[in-house]
Amino acid sequence: MKLATIHDGSPDGKLVVVSHDLSRAVTAADIAPNLRTALESWPHLEKRLKERSDLLEAGRAPDTFSFDPAVAAAPLPRAPQFLDGSSFLSHGKRMVRAFNLSTAALEVNHPLIYQGASDAFLGAQAAMPLPSEEHGIDIEAELGIVTDAVPMGVTSAQAAAHVRLLVLFDDVSLRRLLFGEMTLGFGMIQCKPTCVFSPVAVTPDELGEGWRDGRVHLRMEIGINGHRLGNLATDQMGFSFYDLIAHAARTRTLGAGTIIGSGTVSNEDASAGTGCIAERRALEVLEHGEAKTDWLHFHDRVQIEALDQDGHSPWGAIAHTFIPYQTSEPPR
Amino acid sequence: MKLATIHDGSPDGKLVVVSHDLSRAVTAADIAPNLRTALESWPHLEKRLKERSDLLEAGRAPDTFSFDPAVAAAPLPRAPQFLDGSSFLSHGKRMVRAFNLSTAALEVNHPLIYQGASDAFLGAQAAMPLPSEEHGIDIEAELGIVTDAVPMGVTSAQAAAHVRLLVLFDDVSLRRLLFGEMTLGFGMIQCKPTCVFSPVAVTPDELGEGWRDGRVHLRMEIGINGHRLGNLATDQMGFSFYDLIAHAARTRTLGAGTIIGSGTVSNEDASAGTGCIAERRALEVLEHGEAKTDWLHFHDRVQIEALDQDGHSPWGAIAHTFIPYQTSEPPR
Repeated sequence: MKLATIHDGSPDGKLVVVSHDLSRAVTAADIAPNLRTALESWPHLEKRLKERSDLLEAGRAPDTFSFDPAVAAAPLPRAPQFLDGSSFLSHGKRMVRAFNLSTAALEVNHPLIYQGASDAFLGAQAAMPLPSEEHGIDIEAELGIVTDAVPMGVTSAQAAAHVRLLVLFDDVSLRRLLFGEMTLGFGMIQCKPTCVFSPVAVTPDELGEGWRDGRVHLRMEIGINGHRLGNLATDQMGFSFYDLIAHAARTRTLGAGTIIGSGTVSNEDASAGTGCIAERRALEVLEHGEAKTDWLHFHDRVQIEALDQDGHSPWGAIAHTFIPYQTSEPPR
Repeated sequence: MKLATIHDGSPDGKLVVVSHDLSRAVTAADIAPNLRTALESWPHLEKRLKERSDLLEAGRAPDTFSFDPAVAAAPLPRAPQFLDGSSFLSHGKRMVRAFNLSTAALEVNHPLIYQGASDAFLGAQAAMPLPSEEHGIDIEAELGIVTDAVPMGVTSAQAAAHVRLLVLFDDVSLRRLLFGEMTLGFGMIQCKPTCVFSPVAVTPDELGEGWRDGRVHLRMEIGINGHRLGNLATDQMGFSFYDLIAHAARTRTLGAGTIIGSGTVSNEDASAGTGCIAERRALEVLEHGEAKTDWLHFHDRVQIEALDQDGHSPWGAIAHTFIPYQTSEPPR
């Protein structure tokens, strides 16, 4: 089942069911007004959403319409929590080596997770407003899971039952602000503005064998202005999503609709490229002694998509840009 | 105006207006179902809420009821963002000196803020479930502001117009997990379970001269099991709440209902005591070479209250405990 959110002026948007091929959609607002409330009552509503999806596939749903990723909001424009990992270990290792960062984060045997803003996620084709190119604009191509309500203290094994949806997203990062914030011990605030999400969220069964062991087994294609940045296997997570849930929930509950990210997709094989500019610069530093690839500029076009063996794109493409933020605030 | 939230089975609870003396309440659910939606439409609803408050004070509101802080939820059981500062600089300085922490955080000339969970805040008299006493349970007595929708890039001067409500809260911290997390650069996750809030949120005018320059000018009384931990002036913030808003919003928007915390209240004068056990232990280390005060235990009683010169308590008291978390999760 594929679910999307359409802008309707409300903060959470309107829930729609989307066809497997992403071409058609039908409202589900009569089942749950938005995806957030659907996740809060998932055991009661999943069957009805699935029936709507089956009707849509069978061509028997009334009032279907063409699904346009350009007008889709993030599947969850606002989520109870956004917890983002760094589970592709080759990413962290390269960053530490290239930029002489603290090795402390490489030496722990548990997932690394930061808490990010989750109140204004953007849709797949958004023009993302940012204050300045001087902050070192970068992408992070990631996979994510959406949970139902997770009790405190779940184990990794118990966590498997709490994965309701899978998403793809770009965890936009401002690199010139990031290293400074990381040294202060308070986590990442200014360096992590918000994220841009895939047009739809999918139930794990949509991936078939592409979802197993708490990992996604597909390839991810990442491009900037039509040039490939990476074509990466998505299954090299040192910690699974189940481990990430258990780590996050050790001392807290997670509200239904919590999104947990994988961290930047990365492969041990450097020839596969990277899921962000920073890691590409790290590879350049390690190989040539200096970084050559520039950070991103306003109006650069980011493309992120996951593909299965047959070239199908379960989530559709993220295809967004950046624009200068225009304030409407009166001067003081 | 004082606003509170009553549990009604919904995630956001039900909005009520509370009398200045905290004795009586009246529903405001016909104006806005909950405080979160009220803050999203504040310019349209503030006047009606104020009228309801005036009716209540005049004894002319129908269907009033006795306000019982014991059944109040957090004013915002879930908030779009929770960003918590460390603005009482004497706190950070003592912690760094006593425990040989990195001095990096003392050397920056901007606020320090971490992002915490905001999807399950607790009411003033909650019994807070935690997994283990071994994590070093501690309180942090704090003041907080609640914003309306804040645009990206506001200045401190512009930020003043975005403070809608003031709250008091306990940012419960698990100290034996905290230092480890702070050294990893990803911020605080496991060491920050959730917070316990004052029975009501108040509009800034409720404090009169007690709210000025983006700071609260009152005293805060903090006790454990009836023994005073601190009696602290609340106005020694090195950065004002306006500065905190501007820092938080530099590269992002803040959704209406965002809560920004002051950090643990602390005074330069050590004889005033402390707003947390950790800082008391820091003072013990600095004076005696070792910490003597133990971390908290299940069923210990925490009392946090702010008082004006006349002994009035604008928010009422936080009076909570801790209990062992009981999972309902099936074993796997």
